[in-house]
Amino acid sequence: MSFKHTVIIGVGAIGASFAHSIKRLGLSERVSGYGRTENVLIKAKDRGIIDDYGLNIKELCQDADLVVLTSPIVTFIDIVKSFAGYLKKGAIVTDAGSVKGSLVYDIEEIMPEGIHFVGVHPMAGTEQSGIDASKPSLFEGATVIITPTENTNIDALNMIKELWTKIGAKIKILTPEQHDEIISSISHLPHVIAYTLVNAVFDIGIDNMNYCSNGFLDTTRIAMSSPQMWKDIFLCNKDNILKHIEVFQKNLDTLKNCLENENTEQLLQNLTHAQKLRKDLYKGVKGIS
Amino acid sequence: MSFKHTVIIGVGAIGASFAHSIKRLGLSERVSGYGRTENVLIKAKDRGIIDDYGLNIKELCQDADLVVLTSPIVTFIDIVKSFAGYLKKGAIVTDAGSVKGSLVYDIEEIMPEGIHFVGVHPMAGTEQSGIDASKPSLFEGATVIITPTENTNIDALNMIKELWTKIGAKIKILTPEQHDEIISSISHLPHVIAYTLVNAVFDIGIDNMNYCSNGFLDTTRIAMSSPQMWKDIFLCNKDNILKHIEVFQKNLDTLKNCLENENTEQLLQNLTHAQKLRKDLYKGVKGIS
Repeated sequence: MSFKHTVIIGVGAIGASFAHSIKRLGLSERVSGYGRTENVLIKAKDRGIIDDYGLNIKELCQDADLVVLTSPIVTFIDIVKSFAGYLKKGAIVTDAGSVKGSLVYDIEEIMPEGIHFVGVHPMAGTEQSGIDASKPSLFEGATVIITPTENTNIDALNMIKELWTKIGAKIKILTPEQHDEIISSISHLPHVIAYTLVNAVFDIGIDNMNYCSNGFLDTTRIAMSSPQMWKDIFLCNKDNILKHIEVFQKNLDTLKNCLENENTEQLLQNLTHAQKLRKDLYKGVKGIS
Repeated sequence: MSFKHTVIIGVGAIGASFAHSIKRLGLSERVSGYGRTENVLIKAKDRGIIDDYGLNIKELCQDADLVVLTSPIVTFIDIVKSFAGYLKKGAIVTDAGSVKGSLVYDIEEIMPEGIHFVGVHPMAGTEQSGIDASKPSLFEGATVIITPTENTNIDALNMIKELWTKIGAKIKILTPEQHDEIISSISHLPHVIAYTLVNAVFDIGIDNMNYCSNGFLDTTRIAMSSPQMWKDIFLCNKDNILKHIEVFQKNLDTLKNCLENENTEQLLQNLTHAQKLRKDLYKGVKGIS
């Protein structure tokens, strides 16, 4: 399996890593970049991450057989609308968005007859963003969630599965709804908590941060992630995240009550429960990249 | 400066690392270990971490000029009472406890005339505990907080400062009260949050953890820390931690309200504020071990 012409929309950490890895593995004869900032596209071309780039999305996409949306999720609908009508029959549109929900169905509705959309969320990336944070090995060993619906074309789904498998990812299949619920708990909620912890320590006393060691640094690493991107993710997955914040608040209240009442037994049980879960997880996933 | 005979009470991750580093640097002619479990003491001797060990604390301490408490903080008072009366004049007692508060004053009260206590908190260690987690380089570049009071003997304070400086630590001086307030915010609160986040994701759905990637793993790493030890720390520093949990809760409510009301501007400000603080911290402390 190889694509003839792949267009990457948004050549940031994820887009550039994807472009670079499919080029390196020979999974697309031609890889083009599209984005808002020409300097980034020039950099990507100079570094051999893409073969070429275009500033006119319609022209660029008209002979593409694969278009990959890696720009901010809030841009997806407008961007897809701008090029969908120009794609040739059989082309596949896919994405790398962190929220699926209604986006998958909205994009499916825009797709003309014979053009197929397959939703994908590669669980990779760090707190850094932009082309300088990209690397062709980013997805090796990473979990990649594909979110088909009852409308998804089976051949397109299989091609996307095969593509990510060749890139070295571990594929999981979820509905868009399952995806958003799960990712809210293990990615979006931790981001909410990390940003909040930094702001809380600021309120307590900014100078206290001079004393921090690895515990605080690790717990808040993901608070260095792009506020623009995470604001969009939080709003797009608002209902799940609000529900999960409440579960967190309930658990925090329980621990707080144990402390207030010096309920030593329950406090110990509470911490032991968390420690065991987290240690089991360590054993289970320590190979994750 | 060199001590003739140092006794380490509790040969775990911190105690064994300390013993090993002062032996390696020749800062004590003889280093003895004391603990509840003879097997651990035998292991420590076999590995060259200590020179010898004893099971009778009074005999072991009677010619010591330095005694270092690295056992759980809740054991300090009883242990100090058991050997304090047998120490020779001029001996120094110090510790490695994560909470200072009343402990420092309580131990000062137990000290006989001519024996000096100096409170110390080395900010090192990981989520692992026990002798197998020890290493002689643990304190190189680490921040070590010394918490003198108005009763602290200046010569003893200076010797402890010099000792930790030779070990390679960066010394900071705080009152016991300042220490507990600061450490509550940047260490105890993050532990509360990490344990709580794991328990919250369990409540949401334990299978979700199969999808977790580095974000969740880093944010919750310290939830693998010893529940026994952290239960004690939380209870000993209860008032500060409860106050700081409330600041966290207020910040979480603010973020939650932004989401509920789709207050995009305030949400973005909130995340940007945290990101900037955390990035500045990265620049400031990335050299911390």
